[in-house]
Amino acid sequence: MNGLQLKLQKREKLADQLYGQILEQIVSGNLGEGTKLPSENEICASFGVSRPVVREALRKLQSDGLVYARQGVGSFVKRRPPQGLIDFGGVSDVAGLLRCFEARIAIEGATARMAANRASLRHHRDIQNALKMLEDGIAAGDIADKADLDFHMTIARASGNEIFVTILTSLHDVMSKSMMVALNITRGGSKERAQKVLNEHRQIYDAIVGGDGDSAELLMRYHLHQARQRVTDHARDI
Amino acid sequence: MNGLQLKLQKREKLADQLYGQILEQIVSGNLGEGTKLPSENEICASFGVSRPVVREALRKLQSDGLVYARQGVGSFVKRRPPQGLIDFGGVSDVAGLLRCFEARIAIEGATARMAANRASLRHHRDIQNALKMLEDGIAAGDIADKADLDFHMTIARASGNEIFVTILTSLHDVMSKSMMVALNITRGGSKERAQKVLNEHRQIYDAIVGGDGDSAELLMRYHLHQARQRVTDHARDI
Amino acid sequence: MNGLQLKLQKREKLADQLYGQILEQIVSGNLGEGTKLPSENEICASFGVSRPVVREALRKLQSDGLVYARQGVGSFVKRRPPQGLIDFGGVSDVAGLLRCFEARIAIEGATARMAANRASLRHHRDIQNALKMLEDGIAAGDIADKADLDFHMTIARASGNEIFVTILTSLHDVMSKSMMVALNITRGGSKERAQKVLNEHRQIYDAIVGGDGDSAELLMRYHLHQARQRVTDHARDI
Amino acid sequence: MNGLQLKLQKREKLADQLYGQILEQIVSGNLGEGTKLPSENEICASFGVSRPVVREALRKLQSDGLVYARQGVGSFVKRRPPQGLIDFGGVSDVAGLLRCFEARIAIEGATARMAANRASLRHHRDIQNALKMLEDGIAAGDIADKADLDFHMTIARASGNEIFVTILTSLHDVMSKSMMVALNITRGGSKERAQKVLNEHRQIYDAIVGGDGDSAELLMRYHLHQARQRVTDHARDI
Repeated sequence: MNGLQLKLQKREKLADQLYGQILEQIVSGNLGEGTKLPSENEICASFGVSRPVVREALRKLQSDGLVYARQGVGSFVKRRPPQGLIDFGGVSDVAGLLRCFEARIAIEGATARMAANRASLRHHRDIQNALKMLEDGIAAGDIADKADLDFHMTIARASGNEIFVTILTSLHDVMSKSMMVALNITRGGSKERAQKVLNEHRQIYDAIVGGDGDSAELLMRYHLHQARQRVTDHARDI
Repeated sequence: MNGLQLKLQKREKLADQLYGQILEQIVSGNLGEGTKLPSENEICASFGVSRPVVREALRKLQSDGLVYARQGVGSFVKRRPPQGLIDFGGVSDVAGLLRCFEARIAIEGATARMAANRASLRHHRDIQNALKMLEDGIAAGDIADKADLDFHMTIARASGNEIFVTILTSLHDVMSKSMMVALNITRGGSKERAQKVLNEHRQIYDAIVGGDGDSAELLMRYHLHQARQRVTDHARDI
Repeated sequence: MNGLQLKLQKREKLADQLYGQILEQIVSGNLGEGTKLPSENEICASFGVSRPVVREALRKLQSDGLVYARQGVGSFVKRRPPQGLIDFGGVSDVAGLLRCFEARIAIEGATARMAANRASLRHHRDIQNALKMLEDGIAAGDIADKADLDFHMTIARASGNEIFVTILTSLHDVMSKSMMVALNITRGGSKERAQKVLNEHRQIYDAIVGGDGDSAELLMRYHLHQARQRVTDHARDI
Repeated sequence: MNGLQLKLQKREKLADQLYGQILEQIVSGNLGEGTKLPSENEICASFGVSRPVVREALRKLQSDGLVYARQGVGSFVKRRPPQGLIDFGGVSDVAGLLRCFEARIAIEGATARMAANRASLRHHRDIQNALKMLEDGIAAGDIADKADLDFHMTIARASGNEIFVTILTSLHDVMSKSMMVALNITRGGSKERAQKVLNEHRQIYDAIVGGDGDSAELLMRYHLHQARQRVTDHARDI
């Protein structure tokens, strides 16, 4: 898993380039929120790419929550991600980050449920310590990225399945740069937002210690879903 | 993700060793199906390990479907895995294989759903081709491990999230030896079983091509759950 | 919940009528498997209904697994349900039955998981007894509808939440006629199919008694998904 | 489904009575948060009931989030529900309400997903109108119970499966009194809490209109999970 060296097929490469160019238009504000994108035909023509390539790019923008489709009408800009995200990270980092959260929802939903069902008292203590570090860090105004990572890793460890630990470690190695960028942007700013993020973590902890697997999975998925939203939707405080 | 080099903590190492020794007793038939395991106290005493270590090992045997607990009564042997599994693979390979399937259920449930929602016609063709290879291989009496892997990888590719492709590739690199062992044992034998495995793949394909994400996720999870069962439960043809 | 007296809005009534008429064409064989349906415009014209009504009807045929859509091409017949289903039950019973299974997947997936987590030993015995009755009935060549119902109801009772019991009782009161029709058709016929149905029940029982909530939910959902498929797909033995 | 007339078996009746008496001790403050409950033996003795009855009652208090168990140590009070809940509603209403939310999580998770996948533009408008009424009501300081119900019912209608509409209608008929009590307590009080409730609804709406079934299911489950928490956990603003 050295550097996520993906041997993309040609069409996928083109689709990703197109994705990046449309994303840049959205971030720059050229394509504002609510704006209708050019039609598939127009995009084919202006970028010199085939229809499947255009569809692939639109599908990805859609599943990344940046664009939405109205059947028979066209595609519209849904959200404008913060400028800083691209200044620091570049377009491909944004795309990678969004897909990383998508994968984490599936993976960590499972680890949280298993942790609730299987964690020992020692695991409970480890998760609690990580939560305490996160609270202290946020209280001190840090982005507390290490404590955040620790929290998620101790839960993976408590799942009793080491494969999840290995997967998350690899994901983190690959993603650490863009994660930092995201944390800088999404945690910078309001006290209120930091408090929300903290509450999400606390709820997960409570469910795991209470042995409530259903809630632990739900709350972890919700937390990562919100984190994913916060990447592109920094303005609206949800 | 080089070789799943897990830096286990001391207690976890002991728990895994204990797991292996109990598993060997089950496989050899010393502890037959339905037999009550010694009490926690007795295990502590005879292996010279602490209570948390015993609990950890029992928890893992339980979540691996080899042992079940009756509250207030004790733990009982649920299933005896086939001898060959350990002849070829060793105890730790069996444990690793079972946890690999557990992780795949979470990960590939998600890829199947996403593939149903996002796959292009080209992806449909790729999955169909892999299915055809699997059918031909099984008809020819092969274990068709490459075709099986291809089927799952094309679905991951169709999910539109490359991270899943990378994760599955890594898992496969680490697991390929024990996967081969499992396939040799679980596919060897009856024509009927091979037919069932094929049907499970066909149902997943139908759901993806039909754009039915709910069914695709359900059927993929079911397929991997059954595959996991087949590792330890080769006798009963389900 | 007396007789599912649904106060349908006008458009929905029209859509259901249209659904029924297309379904009759499919059952009669006028529209064979794989056949392309007329375009939305043509259906509007020949039935004198508006476009939203046509879309609603097609959407339902699609989510009932009878028709599938190819984006930009049109809708095609996926499966031809058995003639007998309509002889005995009428078109609206078929539609109702399919939606009943859809609802049961969500509801009974939850009851099976909760039963695995919460059932007492007495509940285990009750479920086992119902399973035994089902086995005996099927061995004797009965459709064993009462034993089947009992099995699902004892699981709902074991969930510890009486609301699920009440919901399933109501659903059964409303659906009993069409359920009988379905059982007559889908269980009539091959010994092999009866064996499969029995195995699906046994697997659910094993997961509940083993306290494995994840598997219990998965296997219950799979069982009801297959039962739903068997209504329209009696020919192919899956 | 007239009045949820549950023909409880004798043991279950005793367990429910015991549940009620322990709950009253918790609400009155006799058993404060964190307090250890008497042992199973002591409860058997002081209430003159058998061990299975005690276990059933404790299991329900646990799954209702009022009590938690530490393996080998005992059961502890987790949360003290607000006094008013019992003044207005009685002990059995509280228990019923908690189980109602538990059932709704399974049912409405499914309706939200289906609504995202199947809703027509008219359905979108209906849901939006219900959301608008809810916003106006809350802005005016009402508990807006009718608008809240409408919101959930329009989503059920948009699922395309009328059975869900019927089930929710029945649930509401039976539960309306205790729902009112809950709303009075949980929505009374802080502006901030009302805003959170509103945001939860808005997020669900966005996911449905955006056709994002995964998020719609997740956000609906989260909303009902939080609503359930708010019943017993009015103090902590989460």
